[in-house]
Amino acid sequence: MRRASFQRFLSSSGKRFLSQKIIPFTFEKYPNVKRNPNFKSIDSQDIAFFQSILPSPQSILQSDLDEFNIDWMYKFKGQSQLVLKPTSTIQVSQILKYCNEKNLALVPQGGNTGLVGGGVPIFDEIVLSLKNFNKIRSFDEINGILKCDPGIILQDAQEFLASKGYIFPIDLGAKGSCQIGGMVGTNAGGLRLLRYGPLHGSILGLEVVLPDGTIIDGMHSLRKDNTGYDYKQLFIGSEGTLGVVTGISVATPIKSNSVQVAFMGIKDYSSAMKLYVKAKQDLGEILSAFEFMDGQSQEFVKKYRSTTSPSITFPLEESYPYYILIETSGSNKDHDQSKMETFLETAMENELIEDGTIAQDSNEAHELWNWRELIPESCQLNGGSVYKYDISLPIRDMYSLIEETNKRLQEQSLIADSSSSPSSSSSSSSKPVIGAVGFGHMGDGNIHLNIATKQYSKEVESVLEPFVYEFVSSKNGSISAEHGIGFQKKPYLTYGRSKEEIQLNRQIKNLFDPKGIMNPYKLL
Amino acid sequence: MRRASFQRFLSSSGKRFLSQKIIPFTFEKYPNVKRNPNFKSIDSQDIAFFQSILPSPQSILQSDLDEFNIDWMYKFKGQSQLVLKPTSTIQVSQILKYCNEKNLALVPQGGNTGLVGGGVPIFDEIVLSLKNFNKIRSFDEINGILKCDPGIILQDAQEFLASKGYIFPIDLGAKGSCQIGGMVGTNAGGLRLLRYGPLHGSILGLEVVLPDGTIIDGMHSLRKDNTGYDYKQLFIGSEGTLGVVTGISVATPIKSNSVQVAFMGIKDYSSAMKLYVKAKQDLGEILSAFEFMDGQSQEFVKKYRSTTSPSITFPLEESYPYYILIETSGSNKDHDQSKMETFLETAMENELIEDGTIAQDSNEAHELWNWRELIPESCQLNGGSVYKYDISLPIRDMYSLIEETNKRLQEQSLIADSSSSPSSSSSSSSKPVIGAVGFGHMGDGNIHLNIATKQYSKEVESVLEPFVYEFVSSKNGSISAEHGIGFQKKPYLTYGRSKEEIQLNRQIKNLFDPKGIMNPYKLL
Repeated sequence: MRRASFQRFLSSSGKRFLSQKIIPFTFEKYPNVKRNPNFKSIDSQDIAFFQSILPSPQSILQSDLDEFNIDWMYKFKGQSQLVLKPTSTIQVSQILKYCNEKNLALVPQGGNTGLVGGGVPIFDEIVLSLKNFNKIRSFDEINGILKCDPGIILQDAQEFLASKGYIFPIDLGAKGSCQIGGMVGTNAGGLRLLRYGPLHGSILGLEVVLPDGTIIDGMHSLRKDNTGYDYKQLFIGSEGTLGVVTGISVATPIKSNSVQVAFMGIKDYSSAMKLYVKAKQDLGEILSAFEFMDGQSQEFVKKYRSTTSPSITFPLEESYPYYILIETSGSNKDHDQSKMETFLETAMENELIEDGTIAQDSNEAHELWNWRELIPESCQLNGGSVYKYDISLPIRDMYSLIEETNKRLQEQSLIADSSSSPSSSSSSSSKPVIGAVGFGHMGDGNIHLNIATKQYSKEVESVLEPFVYEFVSSKNGSISAEHGIGFQKKPYLTYGRSKEEIQLNRQIKNLFDPKGIMNPYKLL
Repeated sequence: MRRASFQRFLSSSGKRFLSQKIIPFTFEKYPNVKRNPNFKSIDSQDIAFFQSILPSPQSILQSDLDEFNIDWMYKFKGQSQLVLKPTSTIQVSQILKYCNEKNLALVPQGGNTGLVGGGVPIFDEIVLSLKNFNKIRSFDEINGILKCDPGIILQDAQEFLASKGYIFPIDLGAKGSCQIGGMVGTNAGGLRLLRYGPLHGSILGLEVVLPDGTIIDGMHSLRKDNTGYDYKQLFIGSEGTLGVVTGISVATPIKSNSVQVAFMGIKDYSSAMKLYVKAKQDLGEILSAFEFMDGQSQEFVKKYRSTTSPSITFPLEESYPYYILIETSGSNKDHDQSKMETFLETAMENELIEDGTIAQDSNEAHELWNWRELIPESCQLNGGSVYKYDISLPIRDMYSLIEETNKRLQEQSLIADSSSSPSSSSSSSSKPVIGAVGFGHMGDGNIHLNIATKQYSKEVESVLEPFVYEFVSSKNGSISAEHGIGFQKKPYLTYGRSKEEIQLNRQIKNLFDPKGIMNPYKLL
């Protein structure tokens, strides 16, 4: 393992700056994964062809490719020698047709914010970056239907929609970098799925290019359309292994006039569950997020923010074992306030909440959200390397995963005593694990387990895996709620899917991509 | 054409009684459609096999099969000699495996309420009736997740869920007969899609049996699960052509404490569009239905109800060119009433509404819904035969389809002068068409065009088709919003789907069902 812990900097916009430290190539870390010898290596003739269809020199990159080869988590590093940046569906079609004929493997890449190594090359696959293919095509103001290119950044789409009185149905922490096409490819879930449902319900149509270059123009804009198999659904969450999504038609909800955010401390997990059921009942149709955070996760954020924003104070006076963030979005401020007041008052009476605060304006709301959204990068800052597990579990079993993982790490003497202050310097303990925290979208049964470590190590990894996957499988959960399988979780697919399901998926892959050129070594 | 107009009776529960009149066999009406000679005909050995796996004599029917052979609209009549009624997934698997080996074709059948001939045999296909495979498997009261067999009737599921404080996410007129499995197979949309989205977003998992008998147990119950292609989506709307859905896991919304229903008359279509945008803004998150009806459709219901329920009076004092029914569902009665009052007052001020009424209790709400839900059967009673088109169109083009169709029928002198009273006896005019009416789910861009005629005739049909499909195609609409393609619309699939999309669908069909035994002659 040449990789050591290294300093990482994240700008406030979520954009990253690559560290100067050395990251090992994926093929070195995973010597059992072999390059498929059927794939051709690129040569000067290939470059000449790509130059003929991508006339702009900025559309073909052959050097300084780290930002395309290295994943967001610095866990994977490919060896691609070529990045293509098409700006139209026709160009994508020409590229795929050529690659399919020549047996050149490709990895489609959006904002490269994926967490499972799905969006970066493993060997020398060509990177097909969609970042310059990023125009809004049209917006229907009566129906709220957005049609756009794949490379548009979520935050840009959100700002455009806000100016029209609408919102994008999915929101997530990586909004400043992630692209709509990548969100479709990975079936992004995020913060408000609870309210607006999954992309499988919101996407009305897709334009896709199949590996042989065939353009399937399915940019439909109808909420109801039962005229054949809904093949587009296969592309939602296919992680770039079936073809390339080149156009998206999506139904967007009306922007709410009134948004409320409350942040509260609670005494135990049982109260969190009761609070969730109560929120569904009392807040009903205006509930738009119900986020869970454990105490340790907030200790990490406190430490992180004490460095990055020293003037900011934690929203509650004391610390609690668990925290809940609730957001409501509605059309009538008075009604929404009244519902929230009733909910909070009765929850306090029933002793489900220990303490809480409500944002008084949008700045305060944004600030409360920060305590939830900054957890992932706070985990990184505390250590250097983070093991991330993105799990769906029945709500009653959700937190037991975090407890069992902590117990296991303690039994193996890999983690500092949880009673010691997590805000103490990470170097004060000789243990490799700094902390294991749990947080997530409780309303969706989706919990994130992050284990902050000083560095990635086989010792820690062997304690965590396959333990985490076995635990999840035993509770009928999902080993990947929203992050996908990519390269990282491919060996563990059997923990979440039966062999019949995997076999069916293989047949689907083979139907769409018989030569296997699309994002090889991933998913299946 | 041996078929003549005939009297039809519909009970209040939506159950039908077969007429004594003769209905021609489909193969006689459509001589160009040939039985696939690859399919074997059933013989005594086959029967003996089925008896060995379905021990109950009630599970194998060989006579009096009209209710399985004839479709809901009395438009299609198959010649099946065998109906099998399995009660378990294993039995379905055994049946399919045997049929696949022996080249025996099958048509899966739910409540047989389909409108495009998709659920009945065309020739001698075995009918696989799921009606006795109808148990609720489990219900999770925290998460609202229902797991059930395919044959459960929607209304039974609704009543079960209501007792738990939840609702089924889809509601439709045929609730008294249609089955959940059939709803999945046809991707039923219905009345509240506007609020709760399509089944593609609500279905969490399916158990399916592939044509070769393979059982795919995908009864997942997680809202987020990104572990491979979402193959189950292909079964939603596949009309029984890929396999048999044997289990359903579905996320159900919380039942609203407060439901309001308003019925109003408006002066023109432009007002209807403005009212829709206003309803989205003012009623926001509590809007659960926005239904459009034209004047003629209500004249038909008035006539129908004057016979069936003579004491019932129309909810408004006068008649209007168009009507709108709005439903809200929310968690707080006071808030919902306040929102509705504001909406109605300002809509009246802006002269978007001519007159209106609000239900004071659930009986009145049900009664207002009747004026919308009874349109289809009122069209049948007025004549005898109804041409039904189920169309999605951009909202601004929605009603022009009805206007253009009426114009065309008048130009061909096929319809009585629209200025004459529609409540006069249908026999008073020599014209074959009694009336063409439009109604539907405006919030979803889904309009139903029903043409009530004295009898089905080639003359009328040639004026309607392919005209309707060409019109819809020219406006980028869908020729089947929620009814599917089935047998009836198969020749017109090219009006809504590109040749690349159809080719892809054929490949998918071939992958799942290489021998083509599942519901042949339909969809593709």
